Amino acid sequence: MSDLSIDIKITKISESKISTVDFDNLTFGKIFTDHMFVCDYIDGTWQTPEIMPYQPLTIDPSARVFHYGQAVFEGMKAFKDENDQIWMFRPEDNFNRINKSSHRMAIPEFPKEFFFEGLTKLLHMEKDWIQKGKGNSLYIRPFVIATEAAISASPSNSYKFMIICSPAQSYYAGEVKVLFAEEFSRAADGGVGYAKAAGNYGAQFYPTSLAHAKGYQQIIWTDANTHEYLEEAGTMNIFFRVGDTLLTAPNNDRILDGITRKSVIQLAKDNGIEVEVRRVRVDEIKEAAKNGTLKEIFGAGTAAVINPIAGFEHAGDEFDLPKMEDSYASFFKQKLMDIQYNVSEDPHGWRFKV
Amino acid sequence: MSDLSIDIKITKISESKISTVDFDNLTFGKIFTDHMFVCDYIDGTWQTPEIMPYQPLTIDPSARVFHYGQAVFEGMKAFKDENDQIWMFRPEDNFNRINKSSHRMAIPEFPKEFFFEGLTKLLHMEKDWIQKGKGNSLYIRPFVIATEAAISASPSNSYKFMIICSPAQSYYAGEVKVLFAEEFSRAADGGVGYAKAAGNYGAQFYPTSLAHAKGYQQIIWTDANTHEYLEEAGTMNIFFRVGDTLLTAPNNDRILDGITRKSVIQLAKDNGIEVEVRRVRVDEIKEAAKNGTLKEIFGAGTAAVINPIAGFEHAGDEFDLPKMEDSYASFFKQKLMDIQYNVSEDPHGWRFKV
Ligand SMILES: Cc1ncc(COP(=O)(O)O)c(C=O)c1O
Ligand SMILES: Cc1ncc(COP(=O)(O)O)c(C=O)c1O
Repeated sequence: MSDLSIDIKITKISESKISTVDFDNLTFGKIFTDHMFVCDYIDGTWQTPEIMPYQPLTIDPSARVFHYGQAVFEGMKAFKDENDQIWMFRPEDNFNRINKSSHRMAIPEFPKEFFFEGLTKLLHMEKDWIQKGKGNSLYIRPFVIATEAAISASPSNSYKFMIICSPAQSYYAGEVKVLFAEEFSRAADGGVGYAKAAGNYGAQFYPTSLAHAKGYQQIIWTDANTHEYLEEAGTMNIFFRVGDTLLTAPNNDRILDGITRKSVIQLAKDNGIEVEVRRVRVDEIKEAAKNGTLKEIFGAGTAAVINPIAGFEHAGDEFDLPKMEDSYASFFKQKLMDIQYNVSEDPHGWRFKV
Repeated sequence: MSDLSIDIKITKISESKISTVDFDNLTFGKIFTDHMFVCDYIDGTWQTPEIMPYQPLTIDPSARVFHYGQAVFEGMKAFKDENDQIWMFRPEDNFNRINKSSHRMAIPEFPKEFFFEGLTKLLHMEKDWIQKGKGNSLYIRPFVIATEAAISASPSNSYKFMIICSPAQSYYAGEVKVLFAEEFSRAADGGVGYAKAAGNYGAQFYPTSLAHAKGYQQIIWTDANTHEYLEEAGTMNIFFRVGDTLLTAPNNDRILDGITRKSVIQLAKDNGIEVEVRRVRVDEIKEAAKNGTLKEIFGAGTAAVINPIAGFEHAGDEFDLPKMEDSYASFFKQKLMDIQYNVSEDPHGWRFKV
């Protein structure tokens, strides 16, 4: 893509703040790199994109993003291999997904060449912020916000598309136990659950804080109608290993079509692991936990790659999962990271050279 | 409340911009008064509130409101009577509701004395912006946004509570026809529909734009599970008059507990009009439209007070409502406005002297 000549206005910082950063002790999402990518939508067009020093926005208190949550985002990562080459993982899927999210939120779609040219330029400028070593990455956050200064409840006429970047270390959340949702829900049929719409996430904070108080780190959301089917976690899709078969919910308008999820499904097929993409009943998972056939539950998402789950609770019933020697979770994590860090072959062309 | 001595830091503008405003040609929500109320939540406490010149915010691009829609709002109005006295309508209910919304969105509740003292002081400062004459008002928008500069998906540690004000004229939207939702939905059981959470509103823009394209100004949302029951509109609760009985949906966790709605229910009782607060089937309303017993549909909300609806569509069936001489819609609108503008008695103590 780098041969496209999109006009991007670039303003560099005078001195990098990178020397002040302790890369061995990063809290996720608190430290940002020197520059950011910004592109404004005004009068029906995306204007000339800019890369400029990371800095606060000046934005009217009546901007629609504050009042009506007209905002979407993405989450992606850049990795550095042993030869200092930068890679990304299936970024075209993130690009397509942010536009799908935008469409649902009545936000104009962003041009592909602006996205890739901006992203590539920005990553080249921030290359020192991407640390080598497995688990290290640069977390990349594209997002769009509605900026028009007017509080009528209708779509904004102006928007800001931005990309900010934050260095990240290998994500280890400790032992993760989850609660299967019985009462609260994440998304409605016919709603915006399949979009990375900002409001979907804030809405989970309160139920999740109640889960924390009970000793569970996350919630696995169930369908809002019956609470009988397991759907996904707050920022991960979910897999269940019953016997040697993997189960995961099908995509629908409540569930985010995760890139890690579909990569796991493909890798399972490549490696002769049976996957059933179908509705997964709370009851069958509890039953499998009771009769010992439930061997693993794990989450799949960009932030943690694969996140093994140690136990769950539903309706007062608590279950601990067995410790596995050859877990699918570590198998997929290894496979994915080997592709991401350019250690292994990449038969599906998922790696993207930056 | 005005004898409470809350410390508010006040900075006045040097010159009012009021002389530049054409009060006879206001677009809703585009023009703001000279000052705004701001109170920051930092380190576990709401800090000293401030009233300052209306101005843009300086806010980090990683602030959680942009990424996770952690934001809530309210909508209220101030009215001026013939003697230049300023009044509000049931503001305590708005205050309670914003805290209920905040609670659901994991935002710390705002202190009552800060709210009323700030609101009162601000309105006294902006009194010239409140125009006399029925239909004229000052629209008041309290809101809270998550400001912490960190993109982890968890509740913010800092917030901004603000009140901004915009002069409004009598709201006349022309003839309003509505679409009953068949596929899209506004809120899930166990979700945040009952809260004035920002994301609930942005999520309606796209389905509403599809309705516009079909010639309908608004959508009446149905329950997400079955789409068989009529719930509410985008910013109004909905009443159906069948024969001489009013029907309206009961509150639940998907529906906003509207202050206008509950005032209409009370006024109906006061005036011997029968009201049934119960689930209202799409089918029964279509049946009533066919057999001529459906006399009116109207919306009830702060912005339009009462908004008569001229017709609706569902599943390709179109219905026009009869023009009514003595409509309930105009009866309730008159009654409510007489209380709001201090023209009539106020037996329930709804009027609040500012
Ligand atoms: C709700 C939700 N589900 C699942 C995922 C995982 O998706 P991906 O693998 O594309 O990161 C995410 C994170 O993006 C998410 O926000
Ligand atoms: C979703 C929704 N329903 C109903 C209403 C009407 O509520 P109220 O009468 O309190 O303005 C509003 C407006 O506040 C609303 O946003």
